[in-house]
Amino acid sequence: MPNTQAKVLSTSPLSNEEAAWTKLVKIEYSDPNGKTRLWESAERRTRPKGGDIDGVGILAIVEKPTGPEIILQKQYRPPIDKVCIEVPAGLVDEGETAEVAAVRELKEETGYVGKVAETSPMMFNDPGFCNTNLRMVHVTIDMSLPENQDLKPELEENEFIEVFLVPLSKLWEECKKLEAEGYAIDARVGTLAEGIEVAKQFRL
Amino acid sequence: MPNTQAKVLSTSPLSNEEAAWTKLVKIEYSDPNGKTRLWESAERRTRPKGGDIDGVGILAIVEKPTGPEIILQKQYRPPIDKVCIEVPAGLVDEGETAEVAAVRELKEETGYVGKVAETSPMMFNDPGFCNTNLRMVHVTIDMSLPENQDLKPELEENEFIEVFLVPLSKLWEECKKLEAEGYAIDARVGTLAEGIEVAKQFRL
Repeated sequence: MPNTQAKVLSTSPLSNEEAAWTKLVKIEYSDPNGKTRLWESAERRTRPKGGDIDGVGILAIVEKPTGPEIILQKQYRPPIDKVCIEVPAGLVDEGETAEVAAVRELKEETGYVGKVAETSPMMFNDPGFCNTNLRMVHVTIDMSLPENQDLKPELEENEFIEVFLVPLSKLWEECKKLEAEGYAIDARVGTLAEGIEVAKQFRL
Repeated sequence: MPNTQAKVLSTSPLSNEEAAWTKLVKIEYSDPNGKTRLWESAERRTRPKGGDIDGVGILAIVEKPTGPEIILQKQYRPPIDKVCIEVPAGLVDEGETAEVAAVRELKEETGYVGKVAETSPMMFNDPGFCNTNLRMVHVTIDMSLPENQDLKPELEENEFIEVFLVPLSKLWEECKKLEAEGYAIDARVGTLAEGIEVAKQFRL
């Protein structure tokens, strides 16, 4: 059954005591003038002990004769009650580096076996609202590997992920088209597309 | 006093009843197979009634003889207890379009008077964790305008924002440098930089 059959049935307030994955936090802080102020923040409870990131996003590129293509996913996301267009991504396990997590998650979610090319700085998703963060790991896919011809994703029982590829040079127009079709656009996908458009516009 | 003097003094659990800006929500949803499942989500309470976005980010570009530069900000963010490198941004007021909010926030936070060039699809900041979202509004700055020679930001009493410009073509290396100096990188800034790098790498 396609992702688009999923839907929110009901919502209700959730207390910190009942929550297993999230929490709300009250922060008392000293502002740049030394004045004490309050801020409200949301956090994940899953960040590994001693770790500094919640997860990784994976910028996985397949080089084709027609040009480079990015691996994307369609996944239903209950917080927004929409199927979202995202890069492969996942939470980091305890003791795992961003790079190891990225190669593992890419294989699990899409079946592709990739090689790490570069890792981004730590990036904060919405730092006025929450502390969630990630590193983007750039991964190249060698299509001559037998594993990449016969993809075997290993999804968990509660994961429903459709994988598809988009030419990098058309990512911005594809985001607009997908939004018009009713999909949500994840910030990583949309902002990558913006960066590509800006680079093209100014011939950087 | 510089932004870097700000710091978290203490944190404590925050209940939905006490929170004014945020809340935790329990979602009961039907998965793509029709099975009922639970998800936890965080939300802002500030989204305008009838509106579909929380806020806007502003990709403001100043064209200089040496090439285009992006307007960035340094702002202390309590949820991450760091000074974060961000694009100008802000919450949308009731009845306000993304474009009007973008021009208003850019003027308030930086003093620059800009003209809207394009608006992005709606983008979700972390859709497995929360429902917060924004549109990025692309704004061009006409440096021949008198207002843009004599900048007059109108910051609120609890806002401490340092504005600076970075050449677009050097955004990725600048992000790495700023991270090494102890700054946090907002996902919009880092991901824009990634898009620019990818476009350069593949000559898109």
